[in-house]
Amino acid sequence: MFTDNRVTKLFNIQYPIIQAGMVWCSGWKLASAVSNAGGLGLIGAGSMYPDVLREHIQKCKAATDKPFGVNVPLLYPDIEKIMGIIEEEGVNIVFTSAGNPATWTSWLKDRGITVVHVVPNVKLARKCVERGVDAVVCEGFEAGGHNGKDEITTLVLVPQVVDAIGEHVPVIAAGGIGDGRAMAAAMALGADAVQVGSRFAVTRESSAHHNFKNRVVQADDTETVLTLKSVTPVRMLKNSFYEEVRQAEVDGADAQTLREILGRGRSKKGIFEGDLDQGELEIGQVSGLIDDIPAASDVIDAMISVYRKVVRGLTQ
Amino acid sequence: MFTDNRVTKLFNIQYPIIQAGMVWCSGWKLASAVSNAGGLGLIGAGSMYPDVLREHIQKCKAATDKPFGVNVPLLYPDIEKIMGIIEEEGVNIVFTSAGNPATWTSWLKDRGITVVHVVPNVKLARKCVERGVDAVVCEGFEAGGHNGKDEITTLVLVPQVVDAIGEHVPVIAAGGIGDGRAMAAAMALGADAVQVGSRFAVTRESSAHHNFKNRVVQADDTETVLTLKSVTPVRMLKNSFYEEVRQAEVDGADAQTLREILGRGRSKKGIFEGDLDQGELEIGQVSGLIDDIPAASDVIDAMISVYRKVVRGLTQ
Repeated sequence: MFTDNRVTKLFNIQYPIIQAGMVWCSGWKLASAVSNAGGLGLIGAGSMYPDVLREHIQKCKAATDKPFGVNVPLLYPDIEKIMGIIEEEGVNIVFTSAGNPATWTSWLKDRGITVVHVVPNVKLARKCVERGVDAVVCEGFEAGGHNGKDEITTLVLVPQVVDAIGEHVPVIAAGGIGDGRAMAAAMALGADAVQVGSRFAVTRESSAHHNFKNRVVQADDTETVLTLKSVTPVRMLKNSFYEEVRQAEVDGADAQTLREILGRGRSKKGIFEGDLDQGELEIGQVSGLIDDIPAASDVIDAMISVYRKVVRGLTQ
Repeated sequence: MFTDNRVTKLFNIQYPIIQAGMVWCSGWKLASAVSNAGGLGLIGAGSMYPDVLREHIQKCKAATDKPFGVNVPLLYPDIEKIMGIIEEEGVNIVFTSAGNPATWTSWLKDRGITVVHVVPNVKLARKCVERGVDAVVCEGFEAGGHNGKDEITTLVLVPQVVDAIGEHVPVIAAGGIGDGRAMAAAMALGADAVQVGSRFAVTRESSAHHNFKNRVVQADDTETVLTLKSVTPVRMLKNSFYEEVRQAEVDGADAQTLREILGRGRSKKGIFEGDLDQGELEIGQVSGLIDDIPAASDVIDAMISVYRKVVRGLTQ
């Protein structure tokens, strides 16, 4: 079905569906489940100490013989150790994000690793291509977790990135994509594939706490917000912690004060430990469309089935 | 082609493309051009004194024998006079926005007028259906001009509104839609039709100043911003006026101070008089994709042609 697709060919996978690397959600269980179901699973290194990452990579290799990758936020403090482990363990797909594609792309490419970088605007997409990446993920304002400062939505960002660099490398759409309708929409905009975060964060194989998963299931369309813009913009569910941040911002708090309120381990507290009140509940706007906790393979099957139905039903 | 479409049947038009009513852009020239080309043109009453609106309606009737409508922001000060003129002139399609659908829907329906209301979230969409509207426009965060407080993007909003009310009334997608790719995307999300603002604001028949049109043509993906959130959220191009607003917000200005900076006639100054420095340059994020000033009919022809190509090219 997607045999002539640039992304399925690049990664040697069945469907152009990539699971986003997410803190506290995407360990070896989720990544291997997605890869086994025909997508591309990614281990999210952002919430892992180097030794923990090594363990997840090894377990993922044992759990699937399909391709999988690692997502590395480039601002990670132990970045050199992380990259060393990726090389030693023979991981051959790396998604980099939250940083400059100039820093690690050549190093990874020299080791035969396929490199994809995540961008929030056209300028950085062009820079990625200059630096030799194999594909680009363009992520819109509606995405959960850390987000760009330009606030460009997926609907508007994807076609502009496609026009700018689509002839050189494949473009993967991210942000707001949780079902087959949104997948069809992204492909209509010219994307070669989709990257799906929130929908996979709320699956059985996600390592998020069940409190967190249940909270997302209950969320309606208006419950996430992009906040902490003067520190690092992040999309999360509104809760007591967010209310504290919001009040501090109303009172004119500077970035330093907000960093103190944020403190350390807020996302772990919210997503992994299930503290819905004081934790940082990172999730995308698409949470309003999420109303169950299926297996990751069911997400992929439903997405492909709905995609097909939608595409066949469009007026020609 | 779209003969079995709920929106083309509702308005008796050829294509499910509606031109948004926009301040200082959409007078009789633009509305009649769009209607003559097979879409639905709307006269934007938001920037018109009652007598001016009457003149535009009369000229539009003379310029087209196709259906057209009027867009009425419900917070308009002369709202009773405006509605009276609409009745007297026999306008039979009214799009209401920026207000409560409970206020005018029954009055309009009692007079045999087709009523469509613009909403930024699911809750208001449900309320519209309860109040008896004939269709709903759901408008995303990326849209130009006045915008909702929930910041829900078109990609995420459309399918949620479709799920909530699509079985009762047609859903029209708005925000970020400027070409056939975005139109196909919106239809894939389940929309029955699209409403297009920015792309029609930059056409030959738009009454915007040529300085404004040229400025939009030059804009890249990062140049609009949703601002004045404590007064009324509005998306505009960044310029000296925006910089003044931004600085005041950084300095902790309250809503009253921001209202004073905004003053009166800012959007007229920017859009109609072409003051790119001190005017309010209301336009959507899609401005990064706009790079010419065609006739309105060329916009529609290109949109349909690209839509067809995109739909036929999607992997099944």
